[in-house]
Amino acid sequence: MTVPSLSKRAQTMPASPIRRLAPFAVAARKAGKTVYALNIGQPDVPTPKVILERLRTYRETFVPYGPSQGLPEFVEALRTYYAGLGVPLAAEEIFVTTAGSEALLFTLGALCDAGDEVLVFEPFYTNYNGFCTMMGVVPVPVTTRAEDGYHLPARAAIEARIGPRTRAILVCSPNNPTGTVYTDAEIDMLAEICRARGLTLVADEVYREFTYDGRKHRSVLQLPRMERQVVVVDSVSKRYSLCGARIGNIVSRNRDFMAAILRFGQARLCPPTLEQFACTALTEVPASYMAGVNAEYQKRRDVVCEALAAMPGVFVRKPEGAFYVCARLPVADTNAFAEWLLRDFASGGETVMVAPADGFYATPGLGLNEVRIAYVLEEPKLRAAMRCLGEALAAYPARAAAAKR
Amino acid sequence: MTVPSLSKRAQTMPASPIRRLAPFAVAARKAGKTVYALNIGQPDVPTPKVILERLRTYRETFVPYGPSQGLPEFVEALRTYYAGLGVPLAAEEIFVTTAGSEALLFTLGALCDAGDEVLVFEPFYTNYNGFCTMMGVVPVPVTTRAEDGYHLPARAAIEARIGPRTRAILVCSPNNPTGTVYTDAEIDMLAEICRARGLTLVADEVYREFTYDGRKHRSVLQLPRMERQVVVVDSVSKRYSLCGARIGNIVSRNRDFMAAILRFGQARLCPPTLEQFACTALTEVPASYMAGVNAEYQKRRDVVCEALAAMPGVFVRKPEGAFYVCARLPVADTNAFAEWLLRDFASGGETVMVAPADGFYATPGLGLNEVRIAYVLEEPKLRAAMRCLGEALAAYPARAAAAKR
Repeated sequence: MTVPSLSKRAQTMPASPIRRLAPFAVAARKAGKTVYALNIGQPDVPTPKVILERLRTYRETFVPYGPSQGLPEFVEALRTYYAGLGVPLAAEEIFVTTAGSEALLFTLGALCDAGDEVLVFEPFYTNYNGFCTMMGVVPVPVTTRAEDGYHLPARAAIEARIGPRTRAILVCSPNNPTGTVYTDAEIDMLAEICRARGLTLVADEVYREFTYDGRKHRSVLQLPRMERQVVVVDSVSKRYSLCGARIGNIVSRNRDFMAAILRFGQARLCPPTLEQFACTALTEVPASYMAGVNAEYQKRRDVVCEALAAMPGVFVRKPEGAFYVCARLPVADTNAFAEWLLRDFASGGETVMVAPADGFYATPGLGLNEVRIAYVLEEPKLRAAMRCLGEALAAYPARAAAAKR
Repeated sequence: MTVPSLSKRAQTMPASPIRRLAPFAVAARKAGKTVYALNIGQPDVPTPKVILERLRTYRETFVPYGPSQGLPEFVEALRTYYAGLGVPLAAEEIFVTTAGSEALLFTLGALCDAGDEVLVFEPFYTNYNGFCTMMGVVPVPVTTRAEDGYHLPARAAIEARIGPRTRAILVCSPNNPTGTVYTDAEIDMLAEICRARGLTLVADEVYREFTYDGRKHRSVLQLPRMERQVVVVDSVSKRYSLCGARIGNIVSRNRDFMAAILRFGQARLCPPTLEQFACTALTEVPASYMAGVNAEYQKRRDVVCEALAAMPGVFVRKPEGAFYVCARLPVADTNAFAEWLLRDFASGGETVMVAPADGFYATPGLGLNEVRIAYVLEEPKLRAAMRCLGEALAAYPARAAAAKR
């Protein structure tokens, strides 16, 4: 009897650096510690009331399949939302997915065959790696640097990474994990490269509404002469604090692309019906909701960044959007440090959970001394978490060794 | 400026034969026709009340991510369910997915690399094709015949299709689209082949609870000496009339396999939170619920099969489970016939929508004169639908031409 082995795909599939430490957190909590979870972008702000109230009005006696492309009422609600951004869309230009995750998976699948390449700016959302592995796609990193606030390098540095199998440039703005909001000039440059080289510009805009210090986000859907070459990946997860709802969508004006996405979507039948039903209420979310959320996050960002900047040996720049910040710590390996925080450290019975940043890089060796911090907790908790982190850095036994290198 | 083209994967991705005709149905309904939809396995029976009532007790102020492997309370409910089937499972042997669709996609991805093969008995659930295309996996069909009630061919015929790249045998019992429930001897034979050849037996058991005439379904999880080689794909969609909930799960006792599935699952973060919350109530579904549903379906099956058997030129055998029946019609191409039914036919303002069966075959040319009928409507509607179908077959202009061949 031979026992079957797993695919190479399964063997190379990366564990999520965000979720890998979960068992240590479970153990720490079991041991009675308070763990401030800054490792994952799980906002604690309330979902707009109208959405949860709409859910409670579901009165059908069963839960049927919806159309593969989404419930018409929900697609209509999304059209209203995009029109409010200055982006008029036809219903056929929107495809509802099971969260941004499926939107990315389908988009990669529709653009790339196994072995094809996608340019992506590192550090990048770690799960891009997972989706690429599932689809056999090769993410080709273009490195951005902490010193530049993780803004884009010059055009030549980007174009140098384009090869015969490059199919798309994947950009996330406001960025996860860096919080960087690319300037209009940066996005225009990417569009120009895509036009010149026949590439698709895939923009992950799930943090669109989270911009600070008066900045306005401009969607790639507003770029001229890019109708056939732009795909937007979107989600209600962060916008309305609905991470567990698993409702996202793709937007594109490229009809052939959307026809392919429909075929991918038909295979999995439909996205969740109940959450779409609830989200039809998104047109009734008052403008004050996002304004309040943004003010709250800007305040949290300031609390976290000011605390980090005051810690000896920590390098950080204040990000422009999203609710993440990448920080360089005076340790050699933030994986070991993050584990140690959960397993061995406590201050007043409290500790903090951060995401080691090397999993956000594709280039081996990069990001080992960086962490991503999601400032998704209320201000008093964030202050307590930062106090823990500062004390932990001072107490970390491996710190001296790292500092000597 | 070069416009990017789509991947070969996107170009070869099949449109769903179940959903392809949807626009014709929309047009027929707009034109005022009543369309009896027997094309899709969307049951009309009520969801158990306890499940929808549980949903209404959701009182959190937001909808957070759950664990990638599923909410612990829901996994616990599933453990109770499987224990009731005589299958004791550890929590780590269950992984919650976004419906059976994702369970299949992840399973194929974890077992197969691009170019690897999976044996599948045709006619088979058409979306297996789609998942295989997405993952670059080659479905190798082993044909079953209407005359045999779509039961399995002899072992030699199955083994003849196994090659160096075969990784698994995928079996669906009770079967979609044929309704066949394989005998214990048939499943034992598949297990023996898998043991001898080092293959994984993947069993799609989402119709487990739907067996008629006193038949009992035996899960492959009860097979001896197959712990490392059995994967079950499951779903609450059909069992509790929750197709739109998108909650399914994988079961396997192969730890390496489950570790890989966890990594796939981490990339997409988690399955829908609200529906898992609702489904924690499944342990409170009374046994009378499934018994009542089964009695209802058995009656519907009899209504449909007796009506079909009475139509001149139609070949059908009464299936043993699920809620589908495959029938051979006296037409040359059921695609054209199904379109004609929606576009050109009406009897008393009514027509019927069926799924052409060629999309359920991988061998070109097979199934062209077959349809799949899902008997998922109430008896009076089914009777009306069968009356429509009978009249339509008698009136179909292309029938004579087909009969002459």
